[in-house]
Amino acid sequence: MKELSIDLNANEGISLYEQIYTYIKREIHSQNLKKGDKLPSTRGLAKHLSVSRSTVIMAYDQLVSEGYIYGKLNSGYYVSDVNELFNITINKPVSVIEPKKSDRYQYDFSPGGVNLSEFPVNIWRRLTKNVLNDDNRELFNSGDGKGDYEFRESIAGYLHHSRGVKCLPEQIIIGAGNDYLLPIIIQLLGAKSIYAMEECSYIKASKIIRSLEKKVCEIPMDKEGMSVESLAKTPANIAYVMPSHQFPTGIVMPVKRRNELLRWASERDDRYIIEDDYDSEFRYRGKPIPSLQGQDTADKVIYIGTFSKAIAPAIRMSYAVLPQSLLKAYDGMIGFYSCSVSRIDQRIVNAFISEGHYERHLNRMRAAYKAKHDLIIELLKPFLAKFELSGDYSGTHILLTSKEKIEDRELVKIALASGVRVYPLSDFMLEPKGKCYTVIIGYASIEADMIEAGIELLSKSWLK
Amino acid sequence: MKELSIDLNANEGISLYEQIYTYIKREIHSQNLKKGDKLPSTRGLAKHLSVSRSTVIMAYDQLVSEGYIYGKLNSGYYVSDVNELFNITINKPVSVIEPKKSDRYQYDFSPGGVNLSEFPVNIWRRLTKNVLNDDNRELFNSGDGKGDYEFRESIAGYLHHSRGVKCLPEQIIIGAGNDYLLPIIIQLLGAKSIYAMEECSYIKASKIIRSLEKKVCEIPMDKEGMSVESLAKTPANIAYVMPSHQFPTGIVMPVKRRNELLRWASERDDRYIIEDDYDSEFRYRGKPIPSLQGQDTADKVIYIGTFSKAIAPAIRMSYAVLPQSLLKAYDGMIGFYSCSVSRIDQRIVNAFISEGHYERHLNRMRAAYKAKHDLIIELLKPFLAKFELSGDYSGTHILLTSKEKIEDRELVKIALASGVRVYPLSDFMLEPKGKCYTVIIGYASIEADMIEAGIELLSKSWLK
Repeated sequence: MKELSIDLNANEGISLYEQIYTYIKREIHSQNLKKGDKLPSTRGLAKHLSVSRSTVIMAYDQLVSEGYIYGKLNSGYYVSDVNELFNITINKPVSVIEPKKSDRYQYDFSPGGVNLSEFPVNIWRRLTKNVLNDDNRELFNSGDGKGDYEFRESIAGYLHHSRGVKCLPEQIIIGAGNDYLLPIIIQLLGAKSIYAMEECSYIKASKIIRSLEKKVCEIPMDKEGMSVESLAKTPANIAYVMPSHQFPTGIVMPVKRRNELLRWASERDDRYIIEDDYDSEFRYRGKPIPSLQGQDTADKVIYIGTFSKAIAPAIRMSYAVLPQSLLKAYDGMIGFYSCSVSRIDQRIVNAFISEGHYERHLNRMRAAYKAKHDLIIELLKPFLAKFELSGDYSGTHILLTSKEKIEDRELVKIALASGVRVYPLSDFMLEPKGKCYTVIIGYASIEADMIEAGIELLSKSWLK
Repeated sequence: MKELSIDLNANEGISLYEQIYTYIKREIHSQNLKKGDKLPSTRGLAKHLSVSRSTVIMAYDQLVSEGYIYGKLNSGYYVSDVNELFNITINKPVSVIEPKKSDRYQYDFSPGGVNLSEFPVNIWRRLTKNVLNDDNRELFNSGDGKGDYEFRESIAGYLHHSRGVKCLPEQIIIGAGNDYLLPIIIQLLGAKSIYAMEECSYIKASKIIRSLEKKVCEIPMDKEGMSVESLAKTPANIAYVMPSHQFPTGIVMPVKRRNELLRWASERDDRYIIEDDYDSEFRYRGKPIPSLQGQDTADKVIYIGTFSKAIAPAIRMSYAVLPQSLLKAYDGMIGFYSCSVSRIDQRIVNAFISEGHYERHLNRMRAAYKAKHDLIIELLKPFLAKFELSGDYSGTHILLTSKEKIEDRELVKIALASGVRVYPLSDFMLEPKGKCYTVIIGYASIEADMIEAGIELLSKSWLK
């Protein structure tokens, strides 16, 4: 039997049992106590250390739990075979570098972001308070995997009257942003699906599809969007489109092309269309462009929309409307996933919609964006001799194409030199090829006075 | 030129321009207006209908936007080729059935769920209010894809002192529950990875892995958990384990097996261990079992933990600690994903941790669970003649194994007949095979008085 001389310190702030436990563990690690060595009896050690027997028992219990020692009935405690202790010490230099934030420029015409100055913080606070005051503990339990039914009813109602989307709440799934809904849709569409995207499109979606080991076919586009003729020649069975306002080109897919696309989808059982309706709330002339889903009579459109753009990016919330033909597969393949959005947040947004705040918020946002849009269009008038303007009257960015065929990256470089950041269209191409003369000028998150100063600088550097 | 006789109604609550737009759209759909037909001039139609010319222009503009008509310079407006209109009408019966809620039994000893009676609603309300009162609009903007840095610092601190996890905040990623972190980890580990899980394990994880088209090898287990000898014979390179408290068996992996597992991982560059530390906060005897991550000196453990179990299921929040060797791959492959958790919720939980509420909450939860645990153990004493008890002193469920070799599904059936729901261990087997005599009795979400009545009924049906 091994003698243990533990130097206990009652004032160390560490309990006596823990000191005994740590001591023995160290002795095993350092091989002073070896496999098969018998430990003192709990009674004996307690007496030796002048502590209560229960203190020693607690220490031994913990060592047994962790597998350092074992007890034999009517015999006592022995050191386990802990094997050669695993101790490869890789002294990796701790040199973790967080991905750099994109450099901040004074005048940043980013096509992303949101006009947060319109965010109704006070209403949000009040709704949050009400939801939490309901004193409904059940709310903190896990809810429906697709999202709370009432919330999905509100969304179905909103989509119907504002986007012409025809669906039942049962067809709606809620997720923490498109980054998390898209992978679920991709799983739902099966291992063999091949995706089609316009050559110039929402790059992040193509990255997500590819990161899930799915193929993305790049489809040529014309002034009406994705060429369905070209699409039909590829093996792709899923077309990812933004018919109401293509990103980044701003193209609105006309009714003829929509019909062609729906017909393409109807020709085979495994064909579907993903309609990403990311910013159709923002149109500054006439009525909103109707959704493709509303035109679909063959149950072929998967519609996705988001509150991140329309409310605030921090509100991680998107929704997808599934065709009825996919619901059974959803329940079987995906039904076991928990909803990625907290029920508290679902309730808050539900109240935001059903009390009419969402509608009013969208109107305020639309007015704010329209004001910036009109300002930019006015300020860009002198540019029209050398540039062609497109993608206007909708969304939160416009496009300028150099008539003199100056390449987009060159234009961006010249602008950056004067502190103005605009974005090359090439960055939004799936496979950059050939030359591109178009830059993107976004106005979602830049303030009006900055727009004026920025365009002024741009005119000095581009039109001189 | 076509004559349009539109029956305008000024009192209909629909704007005049919209009535004109809808009329022409219908005429095109019904083929009364055909491809190439010329529309009246805006001036002519305005006069004809006695409306302002701008009303007609708005209607025409909208029709142009949607592709129904087009304008020719100095000539007028013509009906587009909208193609054969797509109109396959599938009259699918709208018979969507939501997945049934699991039947409710009066005495439900589910191994899932959470003791919500301890949830500190008032503190939560106050923290939420404080976060929203900060009047920091920036909070509503999108944040770091991995989660806010400050929040990750708090988690790193908590994990270090309570779980012995050694990591930098840079190694932590926040996600909306394990269902969303696991897919990200699977992507990170690459297309070729093959997963190993104990034959009896957390089934949902195996479903997620398989739904991402990855293979799961089932590894035999003994009293110490996953057999590393068997593991080494499979092609698997990723071992998914719960060393501190295996679900559902309750096995604590002893230090020897941990060493073997770490050694296995260190033998090949592409080998990693996923340590799911889902409920190690709840242990009712001695100290918590240390994490495997803390023992790992070869940078091979991916540690995942969750707040859903420790705070509330509705708080969709989990975290993963990545080995340093995977950080670069993360930035390259996953870095573009947005964080799935709202920044507001991140702030709230951050305050909950850093103000000490989390620690206190865990203590209260531990005490509440321990009281129920002790009650169940006491009530089950009469069962020990016919059943073997295991998995006690930790987590929120225990296991009973029939010494008389009555099968688990039979035991469950007998119990259900008297209104008590317990769970067959077979339900947690990756590939059920052979016979199983063990049932699971959970106590997270059932109240103490229900426990007494339920076990009483169980004793009448099983021990009679």
